[in-house]
Amino acid sequence: MQKSPSASSLGPGGLDLAQAFFKPIQNTNPPASTKRHTKISVIGVGNVGMAIAQTILTQDLADELALVDAKSDKLRGEMLDLQHAAAFLPRTKINASVDYSVTAGSDLCIVTAGARQNPGESRLNLLQRNVALFSNIIPPLAKYSPDSILLIVSNPVDVLTYVSWKLSGFPSNRVIGSGTNLDSSRFRFMIADHLDVNAQDVQAFIVGEHGDSSVALWSSISIGGVPVLSFLKNQQIAYEKQTLENIHKAVVESAYEVISLKGYTSWAIGYSVANLARSLLRDQRKIHPVSVLAKGFYGIDGGEVFLSLPAQLGRGGVLGVTNIHLTDEEVQRLRKSAETILEVQSQLGL
Amino acid sequence: MQKSPSASSLGPGGLDLAQAFFKPIQNTNPPASTKRHTKISVIGVGNVGMAIAQTILTQDLADELALVDAKSDKLRGEMLDLQHAAAFLPRTKINASVDYSVTAGSDLCIVTAGARQNPGESRLNLLQRNVALFSNIIPPLAKYSPDSILLIVSNPVDVLTYVSWKLSGFPSNRVIGSGTNLDSSRFRFMIADHLDVNAQDVQAFIVGEHGDSSVALWSSISIGGVPVLSFLKNQQIAYEKQTLENIHKAVVESAYEVISLKGYTSWAIGYSVANLARSLLRDQRKIHPVSVLAKGFYGIDGGEVFLSLPAQLGRGGVLGVTNIHLTDEEVQRLRKSAETILEVQSQLGL
Amino acid sequence: MQKSPSASSLGPGGLDLAQAFFKPIQNTNPPASTKRHTKISVIGVGNVGMAIAQTILTQDLADELALVDAKSDKLRGEMLDLQHAAAFLPRTKINASVDYSVTAGSDLCIVTAGARQNPGESRLNLLQRNVALFSNIIPPLAKYSPDSILLIVSNPVDVLTYVSWKLSGFPSNRVIGSGTNLDSSRFRFMIADHLDVNAQDVQAFIVGEHGDSSVALWSSISIGGVPVLSFLKNQQIAYEKQTLENIHKAVVESAYEVISLKGYTSWAIGYSVANLARSLLRDQRKIHPVSVLAKGFYGIDGGEVFLSLPAQLGRGGVLGVTNIHLTDEEVQRLRKSAETILEVQSQLGL
Amino acid sequence: MQKSPSASSLGPGGLDLAQAFFKPIQNTNPPASTKRHTKISVIGVGNVGMAIAQTILTQDLADELALVDAKSDKLRGEMLDLQHAAAFLPRTKINASVDYSVTAGSDLCIVTAGARQNPGESRLNLLQRNVALFSNIIPPLAKYSPDSILLIVSNPVDVLTYVSWKLSGFPSNRVIGSGTNLDSSRFRFMIADHLDVNAQDVQAFIVGEHGDSSVALWSSISIGGVPVLSFLKNQQIAYEKQTLENIHKAVVESAYEVISLKGYTSWAIGYSVANLARSLLRDQRKIHPVSVLAKGFYGIDGGEVFLSLPAQLGRGGVLGVTNIHLTDEEVQRLRKSAETILEVQSQLGL
Repeated sequence: MQKSPSASSLGPGGLDLAQAFFKPIQNTNPPASTKRHTKISVIGVGNVGMAIAQTILTQDLADELALVDAKSDKLRGEMLDLQHAAAFLPRTKINASVDYSVTAGSDLCIVTAGARQNPGESRLNLLQRNVALFSNIIPPLAKYSPDSILLIVSNPVDVLTYVSWKLSGFPSNRVIGSGTNLDSSRFRFMIADHLDVNAQDVQAFIVGEHGDSSVALWSSISIGGVPVLSFLKNQQIAYEKQTLENIHKAVVESAYEVISLKGYTSWAIGYSVANLARSLLRDQRKIHPVSVLAKGFYGIDGGEVFLSLPAQLGRGGVLGVTNIHLTDEEVQRLRKSAETILEVQSQLGL
Repeated sequence: MQKSPSASSLGPGGLDLAQAFFKPIQNTNPPASTKRHTKISVIGVGNVGMAIAQTILTQDLADELALVDAKSDKLRGEMLDLQHAAAFLPRTKINASVDYSVTAGSDLCIVTAGARQNPGESRLNLLQRNVALFSNIIPPLAKYSPDSILLIVSNPVDVLTYVSWKLSGFPSNRVIGSGTNLDSSRFRFMIADHLDVNAQDVQAFIVGEHGDSSVALWSSISIGGVPVLSFLKNQQIAYEKQTLENIHKAVVESAYEVISLKGYTSWAIGYSVANLARSLLRDQRKIHPVSVLAKGFYGIDGGEVFLSLPAQLGRGGVLGVTNIHLTDEEVQRLRKSAETILEVQSQLGL
Repeated sequence: MQKSPSASSLGPGGLDLAQAFFKPIQNTNPPASTKRHTKISVIGVGNVGMAIAQTILTQDLADELALVDAKSDKLRGEMLDLQHAAAFLPRTKINASVDYSVTAGSDLCIVTAGARQNPGESRLNLLQRNVALFSNIIPPLAKYSPDSILLIVSNPVDVLTYVSWKLSGFPSNRVIGSGTNLDSSRFRFMIADHLDVNAQDVQAFIVGEHGDSSVALWSSISIGGVPVLSFLKNQQIAYEKQTLENIHKAVVESAYEVISLKGYTSWAIGYSVANLARSLLRDQRKIHPVSVLAKGFYGIDGGEVFLSLPAQLGRGGVLGVTNIHLTDEEVQRLRKSAETILEVQSQLGL
Repeated sequence: MQKSPSASSLGPGGLDLAQAFFKPIQNTNPPASTKRHTKISVIGVGNVGMAIAQTILTQDLADELALVDAKSDKLRGEMLDLQHAAAFLPRTKINASVDYSVTAGSDLCIVTAGARQNPGESRLNLLQRNVALFSNIIPPLAKYSPDSILLIVSNPVDVLTYVSWKLSGFPSNRVIGSGTNLDSSRFRFMIADHLDVNAQDVQAFIVGEHGDSSVALWSSISIGGVPVLSFLKNQQIAYEKQTLENIHKAVVESAYEVISLKGYTSWAIGYSVANLARSLLRDQRKIHPVSVLAKGFYGIDGGEVFLSLPAQLGRGGVLGVTNIHLTDEEVQRLRKSAETILEVQSQLGL
């Protein structure tokens, strides 16, 4: 499906002038060792997958983009729609197939596929169906791109990142969940909007489980380098804990709000994942709150669990986890987050 | 709807530290004459409108983006979804409202709203409903942004651009239809894909009506500056006219193909319109095939008709129309294109 | 000097096909109120001025760039050299003249011109010569662009920013010195290099006088949102004050080091000033340590003095000064910095 | 010289918190096969080399940049000056050394080093000194980066590209001279400036020897896809051959003009070479007029000679040469260009 069939259908009797137009130079294939083009695969071409693919394309992050989905019509339609923009973008090879061989040699595989909740279905049942789905996705990805990084976006992201780690057999530094990277971005936007500052000047982390039990790190909030809590304390400005809780609550609810208003979320998660792709593939060594194997950090010792911590990302995947100072309450919440996820995992029988 | 209600709901007992955090400087409002921020409004937040809005945002083309749609829930959901990406993008003010006052002072208004064809509805009936729709859209846009450029994307784009011109009372250089800019891009992609060259190195225009009667300008095709037809002639390479017709046919069909596969087109038109927005607002003086008032060009004298011609675009809108040499057959087709559109217009009773 | 004479010398009998090539559209001049193109003027085309101009061009920050210098040959050479790159860049109008009328209507005027120290000349004498120079630069800039923002880069930057404020008659929010923006960047690079993190993840301010008496705000250093000093304290990691002083000393010395090695500094100051230009003209509301009128902040009450403080910058110039908590020692140093500058100013007799 | 000595001099007793700050993840080194970062080396840090290096940095074309020069002070000054901008740029590793081992594993080596003409020195003598210089540059580059592409910028570029090919033992598709890429850009600027169009819409090639004997391909000029000469013919607009010759002459002279005015050229060649680097490393398959082994093209059969032809560039280097139709006169001039270069080469005794 690499070439647009419309173009190939121009046929052997068609405008076959490539040979005439260029006199080829011999030996133009570079030695294998220098063939360093960057390839990203996106699994699932729903609203989330396509927002990610399109943002990656606009930001020129890959030399090759491969799309995989079970629905071949939708898949081909999305591929053509992106290809038709070729004249407006740097040249990127865009392929699509229902067959995972199209992903071979990827540097980064982004998984957005997921089953939808049926009416009356329990969360556990949904999760089990997703685990079944992933057992058809992750092994072929790992087989065709044994050196790639896996970036999981499907929900529940923390458990499915754990599942992907198990199914892939990859070292844990190469299996990452998008986690609370987007939650943290919403947190930063709300603070920036309130103070009328640039959101890029706001530092603020939400960590732990991506979802209702996520943990806002109040002590981590700073604006233009000024830590907010100690600023308030120094200025003797009183603030009620409830106020802070309300902001966190608003962040958690904002995802639900967007879904209730437009039916799904797409743009913000697209930018968020493209941002992670950039840090990983261009070796930016930036710190992002993403879902990583948390065992051994912040006293999380109960078992193998993935949840979001501020991690440094680069070409090798997760390079390290930032050793933030948490309050006792924050540590306690984080451990509770871990226990919640572990309990769900234990029911999966993996 | 400017501020995220979630954020404002934090208030008045909320994290009200903006005053404490910054000591304001007096007189920070610049004199009116230097308030030169760039504002773009997008009317209609369906798949096309949102692909345009998101690409404009990623490419950092505006300081302010206003969205208008009749469906307030969908509208608010899309606004929040874009706003949540603030931490990943240059700062852009994003507003949304069902009320056109939100568009006040726009430099560019992009109209993507349009009625959908009902089962069994005639094309004329559909068009009449769209004209009725535009009579509620264009006058308020013209009122709130009397100096703006109107860029019409809704279909049938040529007639609706004419309608917008009439309804706005704007000079014709400030009313433009996206026309065959995307068709030409698809044309360039297919040629580039066939020859394995960069689509940006392919020059090729499709002009005339956006749709089945569009005219491919074979003489205009060049690759890396080499005119293809005269190249073939000089190389004494025979090509059949049917081959060229097949490529054009494939271009026309590719839009239908994408729609039949994924249900609509979005990404390519999004990039295409963002590309026009850039040429217009950053005064790039680039040549694009877009729908302009064609009267007086290429012997089109039958009446006031908009169709796509290679036009130079800049801050003033349409700066001029390129005086391409067309073959007699191409001129004839172009005039027929004009007549087809004029006949439809005559039925509208404007 | 707007058009390349080489091109105009092609003459009246030359390739005069513009008229034939385009059929112009009437009324293409936009109404005055929408003529919102962005214009930046750079005064002084030495190494610093040209590094700034070229970075602004590469980053596509302006629609028009005007260069002014007293040396007409050098000036014209630099203009042509930039113009010759037109095919590789978005279209930007580039003008140059020894006459300040070329700067008319600028949104931002960046002053890099300055006298060089003669052998045996006292610093005061040099400064007096620079004040004389500025009395020929600032008034015409203010006259031709009464609504512009002045950004002073020439050294000693704090005193010359004060001088520019006086000479221009502009409100203080529209007169800014590049100050310690670059010192802070060097500070961030050194910390990032040491820890092998991305310098963009490092927050760290140097404030006060740009030069030997600058003040490093240790309490402001954070990495990926983690305040470093409190981290060290919480981890019970001992650090000696001398160590911190050594880093600051290394920052101060690094400018001298570059000058002693290559004869001048250019690239880093070019990126630094382009970064400020972006925050100002694209209304980014970001916080930068730049030289602003400091009277009334942090207990600086001795007189009208400009020095660097963390300021929020946007389309209106300086929007506010961040209310950072400083230690008593930091406040004391800052005030001493202010006194040093005030004493120099008192000798100028302005 | 990788780490800033200023930073490392902070010492063992310094701010040694990297270990404390991050808990490292084991196995973070990616398997060798996926270590695909892009590395560019620039040889010679004069005005040309630094304009290239800085533009590559601003345009984010490489993950690692290595600088080599014989003057260690200047070299270290330039490296530090670029490094100090880290906070304003995506993270790029910047190294510098007088030792070629710093270039190991480059994807692209750009050579700008060259001897300057001594007073009274013959061109041949100068060339012989440059050949001697290259015999110290090319072999170590080829040794440390056996799979890289060599891009020669030093003058006389065509002969030195031939010399580099011989000295490297590389296949000819991986040895390229910047050739007339910049001449063609100047040509496009002059035409665009004259017609007030965007230079990116102007296609126009200058080929052959970079210098006085270069050949302007008049038949290749098109504007927005409209071939100019046939346009003039169709419009029955008379033009004198002398007019065209004058434009070509103005292009040739413009390089001398810039040199006479500012002493050297830098910015335009910087953008031009960064543009080539992008096409090569991001596999853009774009067509550029660059110096390639011309034997066998356009009837050039006299010997192994490099001169500029419109070549398609990608990750493999030169992918092919465009088969443009030249007039008999153009072919004759091109062959004469080839003979001139061959004659010089024959005197070198390689």
